[in-house]
Amino acid sequence: MATGKLYRHSLALLTDLYQLTMAFGYWKLNRVEEQAIFNLVFREHPFNGGYTIAAGLETVISFLRDLEFDDEDIEYLGTLEGNDGEPLFDKEFLSYLSNMRFECDIDAMPEGTVAFPHEPLLRITGPILQCQILETALLNMLSYQTLIASKAARICNAARNEPVLEFGLRRAQGIDGGIAASRAAYIGGCIGTSNVLAGKLYGIPVRGTHAHSWVMSFDNEVESFEAYANALPNNCVFLVDTYDTIEGVKNAIIVGKKLKERGHKLAGIRLDSGDLAYLSIEARKLLDEAGFTDSDIVASNDLDEFIIDSLKRQDAKINVWGVGTKLATAYDQPALGGVLKLSAIRQPGQDWQYKVKLSEQTIKISNPGVLQVRRFHDRSGYIADMIYDEILGPGNEPIIIDPNDSTRRKRITTNPPHEDLLVPIFRKGELVYDLPSLTMIRQRVQEQIGALHPSIRRYMNPHNYPAGIEKKLYDLRTQLILEARGYNEKQNKS
Amino acid sequence: MATGKLYRHSLALLTDLYQLTMAFGYWKLNRVEEQAIFNLVFREHPFNGGYTIAAGLETVISFLRDLEFDDEDIEYLGTLEGNDGEPLFDKEFLSYLSNMRFECDIDAMPEGTVAFPHEPLLRITGPILQCQILETALLNMLSYQTLIASKAARICNAARNEPVLEFGLRRAQGIDGGIAASRAAYIGGCIGTSNVLAGKLYGIPVRGTHAHSWVMSFDNEVESFEAYANALPNNCVFLVDTYDTIEGVKNAIIVGKKLKERGHKLAGIRLDSGDLAYLSIEARKLLDEAGFTDSDIVASNDLDEFIIDSLKRQDAKINVWGVGTKLATAYDQPALGGVLKLSAIRQPGQDWQYKVKLSEQTIKISNPGVLQVRRFHDRSGYIADMIYDEILGPGNEPIIIDPNDSTRRKRITTNPPHEDLLVPIFRKGELVYDLPSLTMIRQRVQEQIGALHPSIRRYMNPHNYPAGIEKKLYDLRTQLILEARGYNEKQNKS
Repeated sequence: MATGKLYRHSLALLTDLYQLTMAFGYWKLNRVEEQAIFNLVFREHPFNGGYTIAAGLETVISFLRDLEFDDEDIEYLGTLEGNDGEPLFDKEFLSYLSNMRFECDIDAMPEGTVAFPHEPLLRITGPILQCQILETALLNMLSYQTLIASKAARICNAARNEPVLEFGLRRAQGIDGGIAASRAAYIGGCIGTSNVLAGKLYGIPVRGTHAHSWVMSFDNEVESFEAYANALPNNCVFLVDTYDTIEGVKNAIIVGKKLKERGHKLAGIRLDSGDLAYLSIEARKLLDEAGFTDSDIVASNDLDEFIIDSLKRQDAKINVWGVGTKLATAYDQPALGGVLKLSAIRQPGQDWQYKVKLSEQTIKISNPGVLQVRRFHDRSGYIADMIYDEILGPGNEPIIIDPNDSTRRKRITTNPPHEDLLVPIFRKGELVYDLPSLTMIRQRVQEQIGALHPSIRRYMNPHNYPAGIEKKLYDLRTQLILEARGYNEKQNKS
Repeated sequence: MATGKLYRHSLALLTDLYQLTMAFGYWKLNRVEEQAIFNLVFREHPFNGGYTIAAGLETVISFLRDLEFDDEDIEYLGTLEGNDGEPLFDKEFLSYLSNMRFECDIDAMPEGTVAFPHEPLLRITGPILQCQILETALLNMLSYQTLIASKAARICNAARNEPVLEFGLRRAQGIDGGIAASRAAYIGGCIGTSNVLAGKLYGIPVRGTHAHSWVMSFDNEVESFEAYANALPNNCVFLVDTYDTIEGVKNAIIVGKKLKERGHKLAGIRLDSGDLAYLSIEARKLLDEAGFTDSDIVASNDLDEFIIDSLKRQDAKINVWGVGTKLATAYDQPALGGVLKLSAIRQPGQDWQYKVKLSEQTIKISNPGVLQVRRFHDRSGYIADMIYDEILGPGNEPIIIDPNDSTRRKRITTNPPHEDLLVPIFRKGELVYDLPSLTMIRQRVQEQIGALHPSIRRYMNPHNYPAGIEKKLYDLRTQLILEARGYNEKQNKS
């Protein structure tokens, strides 16, 4: 519940105005009892990757548990005007809002689940008015953390499971940009962060030693290292590139020897500029020759999965990777492009009416129904995901259809072990989910990624994992699209 | 002070761990009285632009006024361990932190100032220990808002001063990513936001009508528009692309006529997909033919300055621009790359010792001194900026040297009117600055951009504005670099 604790007020107004004008519309039309289902999906893996890591659910839960329009919120909404200068909202509606309590069902993928395009990461079922108001915040919280967890997993993959530290706070997009990034990066596989507040809020290990300014504040580098070693002998990773990197390594070794004599250790050195391949190889030689074979070489400086991979191929002797800007801002794709789409609607006591949103771009057409995702396994790992409708059911020997190419199909014949990925989180506004610890979430990520074929984990040109739509749902969706476009059976025959 | 109000606690731990370990080092070495000057600069304009808009200062001020390590912070820091399992920090140091009060001087460019590479946006002078702790948060807050304000100015420029609305919250990087983006986008020139919380916190005009889901929740589109018009007759901008855009426009016109009969207006329509040039031209025709010549055509759908410009060149009939993801995440460059660099240090009662940080990349070498920025004007606008040292002084007929090419120089001979851009914000921890309203900040942006030659405002391949280093400072910097690299007078002569 750490994120909720950070904010003084409820974040009920963390939404787009049109959510509130629509809510007012539903209220005014006496449609407050009307139920809807919305699904939060993304359409393509970020970073041209082969998988995506769902993250941010705990933040959503914290937000929803505290959700309440307070007096200030209501007062503010009362000041908004339409284009005729009259109030936008009726007083009675504002009073309805101030008494409103969250009463939706939420089903979602546990954090750390590997997800694929068009699969709901989260499904919200409840009064359409409430679903609508929550859309913006759900997208904001889940999309960003999912993006960063996925980026972190790619970077950790490139580092071949050597430790990666997240150093992004100073370059992150705003205060919570930094805090949420640290959390998501840790979920994705980083072993720690420089961000102390994230450490306090989430229990993430924090790391850091000193900056160039420390060195510059002394008359020379060796004096600065010595002073640091005297003050914090149990945290010595010297930054060696303030003046000349190789000289810096030599100075670190001089002070390292003194540390050793006093029963402490030279934990490592850090390189932050220059040719990291060359410098790390030379630094490793110098450290090894001086007997510091277990001192780390940490590198930072605009690293991402591609630069790390390139350094690895050059046999760089870096064994701890500090990654900042490129991770915390998801530099090469700073937005996941998540959407929350209506898939069904019903009057109280009636059946669900299924809904699709059309688009000229096929990839943007949404799935109708009460959606669930089933993942099939065999001994070697995951074999396919199927988006199905809970009411139509998954069927025996289901056929899965690629949503981007309906001629690509896969029949699941052997009834393999499987699990449904969306689990109950809220029921009528009550939390029914035991939140896993961050450690458990991190472990889930590793298990889930480990169950993917290595060709899918590849961070360049990965293989496509089979994730598609169950045939009965696919056919229903096609029918709804044709109907919405005005081609019904009758027209086709005429 | 709105941002401070958002958070429940002080954000004192919003920093990198190494800032606190260095602070501990300074404390342990009895250097708590030692003073330093740090400057927050960026090295290149974002987006390959010709100017940058400083923003975020109010957020920094709010943060600094509330700055205090609370009991939870101190308790958490007490749990951190070094690599020998012993506590990282002494208890006495933690007690020092818990009693510490912000006592630095801060000078900064007012928000909305046009800035150029290497110019300090903010200068902090005070105990080195405090400057260090604050580095991360200052960078986080100023860099991001500066980035977004600059992006917004570019987008508004492309829209040729037609209204631009910021719609980015759902795609922004975290909660505050969204809130700070809305504030900075408004500063940069947007006329409003969809983000209701930003509206409440900052008084930014909020806008919004309805989404596709509203239309989908009815049996047909015209019914959905009618229902909306009944509920909110004073806020009717119909989204027309749920099924078929041209049909949607016709339905909007049907309902627009009914609105008119009832004394209301069809404020506009919104296009959110498809060929925006073609569709807006066709929609304009239909609206005009039906007498709705003053109804707006709003467009959204992954817009940025380049797409807007392209639409303008195609004579698209869009007159209100909704910009989301590309603006709120600064999609094509999601980090400014700001740094905070030490430029001088002194013992209590002694003179400043000037400092430079070397780098193999010339652009990364910092400026020493007590830095200030002077901007020279003539009748047509700004003619040059000069970074100078307050102790060396600007001199008469100063020469300005391009930091990237020392042979490019400009002499300021006519003693033109000028102003110094860094103004006092805090003195010994006390706020001495009257915060301007957001309206005044927005106005400053327009005045400042207006005083730049149009060739500098161009968002592709702009002309370089002359912004350089005053010669005496430049020479001193060169001397310090040579000394630091071991080439002193004596060596050169031997």
